[in-house]
Amino acid sequence: MAAQADQASQAFDVVGIGNAIVDVIARCDDALLARLGLDKGHMRLIEEDEIAPLYEAMTSAIEVSGGSAANTMVGLASLGADVAFIGKVADDEFGRIFRHDIRAAGVTFNAPLEAGHEPTARSLIFVTPDGERTMNTFLGISPHLNSGNLDKGLIAAAQIVYLEGYLFDRADARRAFHEAAALAAEGGQAVALSLSDAFCVERHRAAFCELVRDKVDLLFANEEEIMTLYETSDFDAAFARLRAEGTLGAVTRGAKGSLVITPEEVLEIPAEPVARVVDTTGAGDLYAAGFLFGYVKGLPHGQCGRLGALAAAEIISHMGARPETSLLALAREKGLLA
Amino acid sequence: MAAQADQASQAFDVVGIGNAIVDVIARCDDALLARLGLDKGHMRLIEEDEIAPLYEAMTSAIEVSGGSAANTMVGLASLGADVAFIGKVADDEFGRIFRHDIRAAGVTFNAPLEAGHEPTARSLIFVTPDGERTMNTFLGISPHLNSGNLDKGLIAAAQIVYLEGYLFDRADARRAFHEAAALAAEGGQAVALSLSDAFCVERHRAAFCELVRDKVDLLFANEEEIMTLYETSDFDAAFARLRAEGTLGAVTRGAKGSLVITPEEVLEIPAEPVARVVDTTGAGDLYAAGFLFGYVKGLPHGQCGRLGALAAAEIISHMGARPETSLLALAREKGLLA
Repeated sequence: MAAQADQASQAFDVVGIGNAIVDVIARCDDALLARLGLDKGHMRLIEEDEIAPLYEAMTSAIEVSGGSAANTMVGLASLGADVAFIGKVADDEFGRIFRHDIRAAGVTFNAPLEAGHEPTARSLIFVTPDGERTMNTFLGISPHLNSGNLDKGLIAAAQIVYLEGYLFDRADARRAFHEAAALAAEGGQAVALSLSDAFCVERHRAAFCELVRDKVDLLFANEEEIMTLYETSDFDAAFARLRAEGTLGAVTRGAKGSLVITPEEVLEIPAEPVARVVDTTGAGDLYAAGFLFGYVKGLPHGQCGRLGALAAAEIISHMGARPETSLLALAREKGLLA
Repeated sequence: MAAQADQASQAFDVVGIGNAIVDVIARCDDALLARLGLDKGHMRLIEEDEIAPLYEAMTSAIEVSGGSAANTMVGLASLGADVAFIGKVADDEFGRIFRHDIRAAGVTFNAPLEAGHEPTARSLIFVTPDGERTMNTFLGISPHLNSGNLDKGLIAAAQIVYLEGYLFDRADARRAFHEAAALAAEGGQAVALSLSDAFCVERHRAAFCELVRDKVDLLFANEEEIMTLYETSDFDAAFARLRAEGTLGAVTRGAKGSLVITPEEVLEIPAEPVARVVDTTGAGDLYAAGFLFGYVKGLPHGQCGRLGALAAAEIISHMGARPETSLLALAREKGLLA
């Protein structure tokens, strides 16, 4: 674990490392989820030959760039932060869409469109009438992220290195993930981690525990994920573990808001009200964006949490996990930023 | 011009023939339109090498299936009509997206993904804060529609053949267009035409005039288009021409609603109020969908217009030109359909 780096010397507030994914989002009813055997609210990895039958079962969709850490970086950029993203795309239509959108959002993204490999990742996302999203992700080229793809200059230039837990699902990406964390630790930069999904945590619990203990300064998780990580149904026990390891925690709880676990206290942050929950895709990603923005700007933890709640509220009020309006303008309207 | 066919003998209420397009939609300000030299509110054709610089200039986009007549068919299906669409797609990502979405919406679409030709059409659409859309369309494979692509069985099985004016912009498609109109006329089916765009009308005025006079039973246009068609600034003169030719007209007027021009009268239909105009892409297409649904069901002209207004209101309240909710449920809620 590293001390926080000197802010003034850093070209980027945050560099995110994650899967570069285009989301294919359609509405469905609960009966369809049941018929397809999909586990509501979770992310499932699929192979290339599973795309066609699932896509067939979907109603009319929209395509919109996604990816957990990528969404977080776009949210940070929308708040006015200087951010970069590291992830792998192929030389195909979805690769061009992903690269265009993240750059157009103001995020530095230097990855080439790589020809001759697997296609760009896509996630087939079913959104039920309650706004809950159920994801089926074909990772394609994305988890072939390796040491050579880690732009060490970018990582060294960032105040915080933000890592997406989903990267743990494939060996190449997992190695790159560890290497990025080690680089950040060496460079004296802060490391933030998002646990991404309870099943993902379950698949890699020991490795996540070790990483959190040894290298992570700031952990993002929802209730299910943090309890899965520490194999407990007792929040206080989970929080005590986090504190003992010197990690700041931000735990999202859906409509109940979030908890910020500091060494001294547990702050309860209310959810920002929304007129209608349209699509929860990206809620956690955008919470992380708001929180991180406050964190890099040195704001009090409670304000970090409120910025997270605000960004999450914007994203769940429409389809897709990329903000449709300036989060900075929104935060100013709400008096959360000057 | 043909008498209306016997409803009971028709497998489809409407078959639409038009460009098969995927829309790439992003927000922009008026200054960007000016800087790019784009004519606000209109459709401009672009060549393949113009895509990249325009796409570069766009902010983060969403991809959603579009195409004028295709949107109208999807709207009709959403109201519960039996519809089919004829249009050309390539064997590429946008072709797969277009085909998936129109089929998933319940529209019969039998076209193959054609390999080895030009790519699937796309339209880069800039949406300004007032909700107005400015389109830049690369037609790709779409206007290579030819006689061989006209599924004569489909056309013969439809009560109404609906033609998209944009098809006039390329010679192959124009020929197919005339042939489809002739087939419909022979078969005793009704022919409906959408004028699509004032510039498009200007480019092909004589041919459009001839078509309307000889073959069109039902004409959809906005005020600018119908005045351009008849080279007049006098509505009454334009409407008199239409009546003299025995064509029923539905003329949209944006926020002012629409006019239905019958042989006997001009009906003023108010616009359906919307909380906020988000994106006007597809407003005319969906008006046509609502109107046509009433028309094939034999409803009074005023009710046809009100169904058109309702469908248009749904589409302008969100991004993209495909309905996000069941138009049938919406029409029932409003008491317009039983």
